[in-house]
Amino acid sequence: MFAEPKGFCFGVRRAISSLEEALDSYGRVFALGSPIHNPQEIERLKSLGLVIIDGPEELPTGEVVFIRAHGVPERVLESLRKTGAVIIDGTCPFVSKAQEKALTLAREGYLVMILGDKDHPEVQAISQSIKGPVIVVSPSEPFRFHEEKFDKVGIVAQTTQQKGTLSKLVSSVSEKAAELRVFNTICGATSARQGAIARLAGAVDGIIVIGGRNSANTAKLAEISINTGTPTLWIEDQEELERGWFQGKKTIGIAAGASTPDWLIRTIERRLASAKSAGEDGWEND
Amino acid sequence: MFAEPKGFCFGVRRAISSLEEALDSYGRVFALGSPIHNPQEIERLKSLGLVIIDGPEELPTGEVVFIRAHGVPERVLESLRKTGAVIIDGTCPFVSKAQEKALTLAREGYLVMILGDKDHPEVQAISQSIKGPVIVVSPSEPFRFHEEKFDKVGIVAQTTQQKGTLSKLVSSVSEKAAELRVFNTICGATSARQGAIARLAGAVDGIIVIGGRNSANTAKLAEISINTGTPTLWIEDQEELERGWFQGKKTIGIAAGASTPDWLIRTIERRLASAKSAGEDGWEND
Repeated sequence: MFAEPKGFCFGVRRAISSLEEALDSYGRVFALGSPIHNPQEIERLKSLGLVIIDGPEELPTGEVVFIRAHGVPERVLESLRKTGAVIIDGTCPFVSKAQEKALTLAREGYLVMILGDKDHPEVQAISQSIKGPVIVVSPSEPFRFHEEKFDKVGIVAQTTQQKGTLSKLVSSVSEKAAELRVFNTICGATSARQGAIARLAGAVDGIIVIGGRNSANTAKLAEISINTGTPTLWIEDQEELERGWFQGKKTIGIAAGASTPDWLIRTIERRLASAKSAGEDGWEND
Repeated sequence: MFAEPKGFCFGVRRAISSLEEALDSYGRVFALGSPIHNPQEIERLKSLGLVIIDGPEELPTGEVVFIRAHGVPERVLESLRKTGAVIIDGTCPFVSKAQEKALTLAREGYLVMILGDKDHPEVQAISQSIKGPVIVVSPSEPFRFHEEKFDKVGIVAQTTQQKGTLSKLVSSVSEKAAELRVFNTICGATSARQGAIARLAGAVDGIIVIGGRNSANTAKLAEISINTGTPTLWIEDQEELERGWFQGKKTIGIAAGASTPDWLIRTIERRLASAKSAGEDGWEND
C-alpha cells in the first residue's frame, strides 16, 4: 500500500529529467552543489557523467553546468553567464516564484522575512539575491524580534515549509507591522506527502519510509509516521530492509520523500513482493 | 485616581473643536449622523445650534454641514459637494488613512476585508467607498469563509479594533490566500485606554467608568474593569452616582471613553471631591 503522492515532486522530476537529457547529449555535466538529497540517485547520475562542484570558480571553461531545483543566488547565475558556460537551469518554478516575490518586496521597500532554515540552499539563494535588509526566520525556534515596531514587512516562505508555521509567523509579525505583505510561496507537494503518510499510517501495521538520510522532507515523513505510533522503518535502499521487522505485520505501507527516485521505490517494492510470495517470515505487502 | 489616557481621543477632540468653531461662526450647523456617542455632549452642542440629519438629502441648500470623526462614504461627500454646502470635515485622520488604504487595495485588485462591525459608520464609510468585492469580518464571531482559497486578499481594520483580533484574522486568512496584504489601521488610542483601565483596576477599590450607553468603546472599558473583579460603576453623568456604592471603598479610579467630554469628567470629579470633603458615607477619591 503506497502513500500517494510519493517520491519525486514536480520540481525535482523536472530538474532530474533535464539533467539526464543533458548528460545524454553532452556526456559530462557539472552540477553546482549536490543536485538531489539521495545518495543512490547521485551514484547513478555520477555513473552517467555527473561531476559535482561547490562553486562557479571550480567550473572549467566552456563546460555544461546544471543548476539544481533549489536555485542559486542571482550573482552566481551572473558569474556563470560570464564564463560562457551552457547553463541547464533546473530551478523549480515554485522556488523561482518565491525568489521573484522576495525581490519584488525588497524593490518596493519592504523588510524581507524568509520563513525557512538559514542553511537551506533555497533560503540562501533567496536571501543572497536581495539587496537590502533580510531576516531569515527559523521555523523550529520561537519567533523573537528585537524590533518593537516594523514599518513595511514582506514575508515569503521556503517552498517546503508548513502552512501552520507560516500562519503563526504572519500572526506574530502583524502585531508589530504597520504594513504587512505575505506571499504564500509554500508548494503543495510537501503537505500532500505529509497528509498522505498520516492517513496511511492509520490503515497499516507498519510503514516503510524510503529516502536519503540527508533529505529533510524524508525525515519529516518518518517523524509524522513515528508520531502516529505505527512501527516505522526508514531506509535508504533495499539493503536496509530488516526481515525481523515484518514479523506479525499483515499490511505494510510505503512512503517516499520528494527526492527519492522511482527506480529505487520500484526496486524495494519488488524485493518486498518476492519475499512475500516466497512466504518468508510471513511478509505481506499490499 | 484617573486611568490615563482618558476621554476624547485625538480624532474626536479635533472633530468637536472644528464643530464648535463652526457653530461659533455660523450659528447653525447640520451634522450628518450623531457627531459623538455621548448624549450629554449632544445636548450641549444642540444648544449651540447643532441640527442632526440622517442623510445629505435632508440638508437645506447653502447650509454648513459637519462630517463626524467616523467619516462618510466617498459618494456622500460627492453629493454634498454638489449641493454647494460648506463642508466641515471632522473625519479622523486615522479613519481617512484606513479608508485610503482600503481604496488602494481595491484598486490594485485585492479582495478587501475589513475587520469591524458591519453597522459601525466607519466600516460603512470604508465598504461603501469601494467599488469591487468587500468582506466585512465581525470581530465577535468565529472567522468562517466559504472560499477554499483566495488569490489576493487585502485587510484593513476599523481603527478601534484590537490588535490581537487583527492578528488572529490575518493568521486565519494567510492559510488560504496566495497573497495577503495587511495595513494595520488600528489607532493606538483605544488600546491605550484599555491598558490604562486594566492597570488602574488592580490599584483601587472601585472603578467609575464615564461614558454614553451607546458608546462601544466605553462599553469595552466597563467590560475590562468588571472582568478584573474590581467593583465597577458605569455612569453617563453625575446624576447616576450611587452613594451607597462608595461604602467601604477607600480609593476610587475614574476612566472615560473616547467620546466622553472633559467638562463631564470634571463635573463628576468635582462632585466626588465635594462629597469626600463633606465626609459623606466615607467617600474617598484620589
